[in-house]
Amino acid sequence: MAKWVFLNDSFVAEEKAMLHFRDLSFQRGYGVFDFFRLAGSKPLFLDDHLDRFNRSAEGLHLPLPTPKKELNDIVLDLVQKNDLPGTGIRLSLSGGYSEDGFNIGQPNFLVSQHSFTPPPASQLDKGIRLLTYSYQRQLPHIKSIDYLMAIWLQPQRAVQGADDILYHHNGFISECPRSNFFLVTADDRVVTPSENILSGVTRKKVLDLAKEYFQVEERPVGLAEIQTAKEAFITSTTKQILPVAQIDDKIFARNPVTRKLMGLFHSTYNQA
Amino acid sequence: MAKWVFLNDSFVAEEKAMLHFRDLSFQRGYGVFDFFRLAGSKPLFLDDHLDRFNRSAEGLHLPLPTPKKELNDIVLDLVQKNDLPGTGIRLSLSGGYSEDGFNIGQPNFLVSQHSFTPPPASQLDKGIRLLTYSYQRQLPHIKSIDYLMAIWLQPQRAVQGADDILYHHNGFISECPRSNFFLVTADDRVVTPSENILSGVTRKKVLDLAKEYFQVEERPVGLAEIQTAKEAFITSTTKQILPVAQIDDKIFARNPVTRKLMGLFHSTYNQA
Repeated sequence: MAKWVFLNDSFVAEEKAMLHFRDLSFQRGYGVFDFFRLAGSKPLFLDDHLDRFNRSAEGLHLPLPTPKKELNDIVLDLVQKNDLPGTGIRLSLSGGYSEDGFNIGQPNFLVSQHSFTPPPASQLDKGIRLLTYSYQRQLPHIKSIDYLMAIWLQPQRAVQGADDILYHHNGFISECPRSNFFLVTADDRVVTPSENILSGVTRKKVLDLAKEYFQVEERPVGLAEIQTAKEAFITSTTKQILPVAQIDDKIFARNPVTRKLMGLFHSTYNQA
Repeated sequence: MAKWVFLNDSFVAEEKAMLHFRDLSFQRGYGVFDFFRLAGSKPLFLDDHLDRFNRSAEGLHLPLPTPKKELNDIVLDLVQKNDLPGTGIRLSLSGGYSEDGFNIGQPNFLVSQHSFTPPPASQLDKGIRLLTYSYQRQLPHIKSIDYLMAIWLQPQRAVQGADDILYHHNGFISECPRSNFFLVTADDRVVTPSENILSGVTRKKVLDLAKEYFQVEERPVGLAEIQTAKEAFITSTTKQILPVAQIDDKIFARNPVTRKLMGLFHSTYNQA
């Protein structure tokens, strides 16, 4: 566990980083966040994450806590103070202390450091199993703290023996609760949903790498396309690229395109 | 502001009722609550609210903090200690301190006391204006802390000059963000949506009273029925019964049935 966090205007000991219950996150689940990892001690894709954090805050009508340059410096200071290479940094901005328990107050701003569990070798090797579920995240372009459905679905996911959920709605695939989703078609096109999703930073980096070697399509992806696809994978900050071995009853036996992209991503970005 | 709250296992001074940022409400917007008012110093419809709070907790897979009888006693003790007649009591149960920032921990349980602003006389007299918006609350039967859409819509509501939002989806009306919705038809039937809503305690009491004088229908209510309705009103703990004067462009000129129900509700329940 980290020693320090940054809360509102100063560094405080992590165990003392408390919020009053009037905060609109506790009262009404209202807030945004972002999360990025350290490659060694260097924040990976920091600029993209700071930009997205600011866009999320603006999207929820929350005033930015600090200019981007200062936010960048706070992150670097925290990384240096905690000295925990290979962990992750979370930026959080809540709806703040609300007088009436409903309207936005002065937001509470937190920068915290967290260890995270990367996918085990068995998942990287064999791939994971996804369970499809009909649902559309609200305000999907904003990285809000709303994970009500994702957490509520956990017992059902476990009973079904799945590793994660794949959301679809009106016949189209969107994303997993904490990851973006890709298919590889029978003719080796790399396809990913373009709408009603969070614009993942890892998703963007993977698309940029994939374009060098494959035909890439960002477009609406029908749920039925799973049946004819050759491969599937998901992307996220903590998972980077993770192969999908099964979606409901559909099994993906081989994944050479996914392996190629995993190798490219690793050699390009994980050499800290 | 109240002097005391009950946090987890003891009464603490309200200003010291802090939660650590690892709570799943701050991390992932995960939690439930309930809210009831005091008629004088007597909790109104306490049994209904305790039951619903427990149902909400179970619905979100959160362990109940304490048996119902003890919860009842905690509420009564808090009311006595704070001595703030005519205010409201909120029961909150969060997802708790999560080790990994995603899975449910040991929930944090809070009983807090809040003043609230009843509708001003002008709204009770003239009625409010609703703006319709296409949206369906997720897990609508559970009183979760998810008010992301409701709070996000506030600037839009204000620009449109409306007092509140009326959600509809696929052509059917559900509810307002914090109230249930009723129509009175041309032949004086009292109609309210039956599905995809939170089962309001005030809604239930109003239905019971209305049945004595009017034909009452709990059923799916089409958005188009607004155009032929004679009256509309909303119900909630803080608003009790509040007339609706306008929904988008539709104006309700008179409201004798609503007035009748307001009088019945007041004489039955507000004589503390």
